[in-house]
Amino acid sequence: MSARRVLERADELAAFTEDPGRITRSLLTPAMAGARGRVREWMLDAGLEVRMDALGNLAGRRGDARLVIGSHIDSVADAGRYDGVLGVLVALEVAAATDVPLEVVAFADEDGLRFGSIYLGSRAYIGAPIDLSVRDRAGVTLRDAIGVELGPPLYRGADAYLEVHIEQGPVLEAEGLPLGVVTAITGQSRYELAFEGVAGHAGTTPMDRRRDALAAAAEFVLAAERLAQAEPGLVATVGVITVPDGAVNVIAGRAEATLDVRHADDDVRANAVAALRGQADAIAGRRGVRVTWAPIAEQPAVRCTLADPLAEAVAACGVPVRRLLSGAGHDAVTMAEVTDVALLFVRCAGGISHHPDEAVDEADVALAIEAATRFACSI
Amino acid sequence: MSARRVLERADELAAFTEDPGRITRSLLTPAMAGARGRVREWMLDAGLEVRMDALGNLAGRRGDARLVIGSHIDSVADAGRYDGVLGVLVALEVAAATDVPLEVVAFADEDGLRFGSIYLGSRAYIGAPIDLSVRDRAGVTLRDAIGVELGPPLYRGADAYLEVHIEQGPVLEAEGLPLGVVTAITGQSRYELAFEGVAGHAGTTPMDRRRDALAAAAEFVLAAERLAQAEPGLVATVGVITVPDGAVNVIAGRAEATLDVRHADDDVRANAVAALRGQADAIAGRRGVRVTWAPIAEQPAVRCTLADPLAEAVAACGVPVRRLLSGAGHDAVTMAEVTDVALLFVRCAGGISHHPDEAVDEADVALAIEAATRFACSI
Repeated sequence: MSARRVLERADELAAFTEDPGRITRSLLTPAMAGARGRVREWMLDAGLEVRMDALGNLAGRRGDARLVIGSHIDSVADAGRYDGVLGVLVALEVAAATDVPLEVVAFADEDGLRFGSIYLGSRAYIGAPIDLSVRDRAGVTLRDAIGVELGPPLYRGADAYLEVHIEQGPVLEAEGLPLGVVTAITGQSRYELAFEGVAGHAGTTPMDRRRDALAAAAEFVLAAERLAQAEPGLVATVGVITVPDGAVNVIAGRAEATLDVRHADDDVRANAVAALRGQADAIAGRRGVRVTWAPIAEQPAVRCTLADPLAEAVAACGVPVRRLLSGAGHDAVTMAEVTDVALLFVRCAGGISHHPDEAVDEADVALAIEAATRFACSI
Repeated sequence: MSARRVLERADELAAFTEDPGRITRSLLTPAMAGARGRVREWMLDAGLEVRMDALGNLAGRRGDARLVIGSHIDSVADAGRYDGVLGVLVALEVAAATDVPLEVVAFADEDGLRFGSIYLGSRAYIGAPIDLSVRDRAGVTLRDAIGVELGPPLYRGADAYLEVHIEQGPVLEAEGLPLGVVTAITGQSRYELAFEGVAGHAGTTPMDRRRDALAAAAEFVLAAERLAQAEPGLVATVGVITVPDGAVNVIAGRAEATLDVRHADDDVRANAVAALRGQADAIAGRRGVRVTWAPIAEQPAVRCTLADPLAEAVAACGVPVRRLLSGAGHDAVTMAEVTDVALLFVRCAGGISHHPDEAVDEADVALAIEAATRFACSI
């Protein structure tokens, strides 16, 4: 019954969008204000006392709470209706189902659509430093978008943070399991690579005289794939290749590629990046091409220190405990800076996320509510 | 001395451009009219009788000419100063150095910058069918750009066509030779391939559950390269890869790639294309990805039937005869539809063409003039 309400509320929040016909909700927009308004009402309905900060974070509190539970209510462009939202709605059900002291949070910015930032909501919530000079696409600074002083953080200390989130991956579905207990959120390294060869005429340059930047990039794509396949838990992705000034009849003089490497163990990730750098150099050297690396992002892995009690709560629901890693980042990354964290994954259809086709099963949501409630009562 | 004049005239023509600071001369523009005006004067100076057609082709004729000699005076965007122009200027020197009956031609469109066509000038010259409904980027049709009836073709029949052109490749330079005798212009097959996989989260999708369209395309790039390396005279190029909606943290759902395959033997080329199709299917099949092929262009190889007499003329200049293929298309392809053709390559610095850095050696140009003159007198 409460699972049904979660799905209905997710449908209702999906209507708050800055982009009619699609779900797009970014920081400090009327769409966010609308969604926040509904969540605030639901917090009050659950008997929580609600505070808000200038960024639009909501905290609904009851008693001398030592447990914070929630997620975010912003979205990517053309999003699904469960990423983030599910965690907030499940938290509201936990609040409704029990009378344990707790604080339900709805963070205003995790996907970072407007400012290209991440974890902005949870960072403001815990009072972590925030760069207010970043600009959105229209050139508006975060400072001007907020308009007032950010003020003191909402966070009042806690012993535990619990986040429920769709898996955003195919593992649980493939194994026929409703829930997953996250043991760590993997660290990430992101780079932009540029291979610089020599442009040439595709018809007149013999194969043995080419310095083909795109062929070098292609070899690197497969090297990254092979390396990740050989190391358990490692993922490495070249998501984009671009050939500036490319043409069907021109040997590529330059090819740009992105690289995204993740692993739960920071040393394994660092070694993988170093190995790929070596391979890129070797590929480039063999081909008479130059390669340069520019770092985009570097983020260490985060251990979910409350995975064991969460696993006990899952087991108490009669659900087989599947421990797994989160390859995606979550607000729990920020919360881990100030308290112990637990992250519960809910099976999602086809592993799809950041897409209108995001879907969850009502029965799985019911189990997530039960597990989260048991966890809340055990802390 | 006449070689010096060729270089000076090439410099002079370089000033006619629609793009100040760079050389860009496309069909039916003031820049083309300016260049054509100078070439017309030089034809008259050489004692030739000049005709022009509505497209802007120039034919300078002397006596009962059975030899046509020339090339084109249009260019790509940001071009060099010798591609095409060199052949016209050498032809003028042949006309000046002898009194053999001949027709010097300056074609108005070979690179096809404005209408994306190829060989438009020479096709109009011989009266081959032309699609007048093609449009430039501004939406103007070729018919409207011409403005009048195209009229009867300038071509009056011939026994031979000679074209002098920069090599646009590195072979002559690598072998320390000034001239090359082209035996055939390779056939070309061009395709656009689309690999369709499944987009996914780069952090949450394990390596063994991916259907990565870009990895499939990368594997194909290397397969094409390997195949061409193994077959003498074959070149295969993937010049462009595009990942629509790609992002650093998203496994590519779709990757598009171009393919350009060339060989002097049409059967070898056809077999290569068939083999690459098979390999693309195999790569796609192994990866759970779909691949589709769309043809862009298909052009059979053209034999230069007058390579032997041209080789004799080159040998008579005391230059070692290097027979080679042309991987690039030339106006000789069109002229081969109506007469026997010879194509003489001149060494160019670094094999560079379609680029401001195009350069030729004055001594090489002198040898080209001598060889072309000997050829003209032998026909």
